Amino acid sequence: VVSRLPNVGTTIFTVMSRLAQECDAINLSQGFPDFNAEPELFDRVHHWMKSGANQYAPMAGCLPLRAAVADKVAALYGTLYDVEHEVTITAGATQALFTAVAALVHPGDEVIVFEPVYDSYGPAIELAGGKVVRMGLTAPDYRPDWSAVAAAIGPRTRMIMINSPHNPTATLWSEEDLDQLAVLTAGTGIVVVSDEVYEHIVFDGVPHRSCASHPGLAERSVIVSSFGKTYHITGWKVGYVVAPRALMAEFRKVHQFNVFTVNTPVQLALADYMADAQRHLGLAAFYQAKRDHFRAGLAGSGFELLPSAGTYFQLVRYGKLSTLPDTQFCDWLTREVGVAAIPVSAFFADGRDEGVIRFCFAKNEATLDAACDRLRRLG
Amino acid sequence: VVSRLPNVGTTIFTVMSRLAQECDAINLSQGFPDFNAEPELFDRVHHWMKSGANQYAPMAGCLPLRAAVADKVAALYGTLYDVEHEVTITAGATQALFTAVAALVHPGDEVIVFEPVYDSYGPAIELAGGKVVRMGLTAPDYRPDWSAVAAAIGPRTRMIMINSPHNPTATLWSEEDLDQLAVLTAGTGIVVVSDEVYEHIVFDGVPHRSCASHPGLAERSVIVSSFGKTYHITGWKVGYVVAPRALMAEFRKVHQFNVFTVNTPVQLALADYMADAQRHLGLAAFYQAKRDHFRAGLAGSGFELLPSAGTYFQLVRYGKLSTLPDTQFCDWLTREVGVAAIPVSAFFADGRDEGVIRFCFAKNEATLDAACDRLRRLG
Ligand SMILES: CSCCC(=O)C(=O)O
Ligand SMILES: CSCCC(=O)C(=O)O
Repeated sequence: VVSRLPNVGTTIFTVMSRLAQECDAINLSQGFPDFNAEPELFDRVHHWMKSGANQYAPMAGCLPLRAAVADKVAALYGTLYDVEHEVTITAGATQALFTAVAALVHPGDEVIVFEPVYDSYGPAIELAGGKVVRMGLTAPDYRPDWSAVAAAIGPRTRMIMINSPHNPTATLWSEEDLDQLAVLTAGTGIVVVSDEVYEHIVFDGVPHRSCASHPGLAERSVIVSSFGKTYHITGWKVGYVVAPRALMAEFRKVHQFNVFTVNTPVQLALADYMADAQRHLGLAAFYQAKRDHFRAGLAGSGFELLPSAGTYFQLVRYGKLSTLPDTQFCDWLTREVGVAAIPVSAFFADGRDEGVIRFCFAKNEATLDAACDRLRRLG
Repeated sequence: VVSRLPNVGTTIFTVMSRLAQECDAINLSQGFPDFNAEPELFDRVHHWMKSGANQYAPMAGCLPLRAAVADKVAALYGTLYDVEHEVTITAGATQALFTAVAALVHPGDEVIVFEPVYDSYGPAIELAGGKVVRMGLTAPDYRPDWSAVAAAIGPRTRMIMINSPHNPTATLWSEEDLDQLAVLTAGTGIVVVSDEVYEHIVFDGVPHRSCASHPGLAERSVIVSSFGKTYHITGWKVGYVVAPRALMAEFRKVHQFNVFTVNTPVQLALADYMADAQRHLGLAAFYQAKRDHFRAGLAGSGFELLPSAGTYFQLVRYGKLSTLPDTQFCDWLTREVGVAAIPVSAFFADGRDEGVIRFCFAKNEATLDAACDRLRRLG
């Protein structure tokens, strides 16, 4: 078999979670909570299943859920998306990103991404026949270099994929970053795909800046978010996309032949659950407490903590503890110390290794404490 | 926006189901049951949700469900698929088909399909940069012309997509058909993608022939099936793929970046439910009774019934009732008679109209009776 993706192996998240399980290590690698969502949500799923809502949902998603999404986006970001034509429910944010790329990138088109970059972006672009143009973000501050972006934009630039709050670096883009992007794309046909799955997980009172709220960007942006991150149900694989009608029409052409629709009773349950629109508001404080607890727990461990401004990730430098490359260090850490993490080099196409690894702190305090106990023994 | 799929509109299933709803018509268009699945299945989902099984499943699917699938395939078709490397759970059969094409078709490759063809195949191939090569099946018997297939196979042929039991024609391929396909593909690198989502819905004692059970085909086949069709949960969007390891490795490279995984509590519930391996055995008799009831109900309606050997579809010719093209006839039938159907021309790229439409009989007797009452008034 000649591979369409000859350089792709198994995603790092699968590799590390599997190793963690094999070694019975505390799994702070793949990003997911180790606490449960609210039973009320489960009861709603059960209710809709018993009610017989088990057949195909409308292709774009169940109307009440699309309406709940549109209401939330309007309330938070001030932009009205038309429920009929501009909101689509997806089988997770990853499927939304893959579908957006498949629908909008033509063979030979260039797509700009920022490295370290989530590992699904590159393969999605390559499969669509696009060329990945990589802009480097450098530790420890990971700021975009806008003059480099300006120089990279050319007549073949079709799309720019951005992600704020950013996985894996836990940085946020500012209003000025969005302004820069708006200026550079003004008057072009460039589509912005904005991965905002951690939109509600931002710390220290600094708000998330959504492309939805930016006048110059909203008109060209496909905005992707996730119910999994917001409601502690990463395994349910439900997300959504909002985009202007012309872009959404193309998105749906592919969506309908990729997954067609998303689990009906789950959609209806989420719509009920979101009827209490305040549910996401506690999320920032909830995760900020975990961040602070985890950071305090690492004091004296020898790890150098980078800032974490959003997401449920914490980057650390381990240069004082080891000279191993980051993949080997993560392997060793899992096997010998019993804590799994993600090597940040996995998010660079050339495997660039800056001696930085990523921990997920979306865990119970007891889990974080146990991990910190183990990690502090290194110091 | 320049479209990747300029000739694609909204899928016919969405169009007709929406029209049916607008007109308050009985919806025999899109294929889905109007009766509910068993509460036991819902209770298992609820159980796993409350147990906290709400985070990412393993990329290939939850182990108990993969094992249940492998056991079923081995029991029915005599072929052992390795649970670790040769079984993957998907977000429905459509996602499985789309992903198989994206993973295995290179730009410029030719893919042979049989028309009338399910409407997702062509766009999936075109998005992958492949060329769709269409073999015609002709009413009323819809037999493949193997000498035409032999002539169509060439050095650029990369894949042949087949579907038995066949949607929309309700025909089955025989062991001889599979033999022909095996002979024509022997010694080539051609991949067979076999859509067997209606595998358990076959009538009159004629068994389903799976590529899994054919020695010459299993080694080159990616076999797709659906839990939705088998357990009356089309809206849950869960399916699976079995394939030899080398093909599955390529499939998973794309799957992991398309949807990554599938709803965890739903997977675990299905695994529990399948532990009673006999559940699918009643399905053929269950739907055969509905087929017979529906056919009897159409007697005297003026519709000419084509054979229905499998699936939950019934094709009819309406030439005695109307000279309208089939799309217009379906529109009229929905609006004026109050019964929605699917025009078979929607499954031909050139819109070839043979005066045949498709009804879905996966409905309660009362629904079928009400539809037949309306349809008989035409006769
Ligand atoms: C898709 S599994 C990985 C979850 C995640 O987004 C992460 O760990 O970064
Ligand atoms: C994907 S919705 C259509 C269901 C179906 O397979 C059909 O009606 O043929």
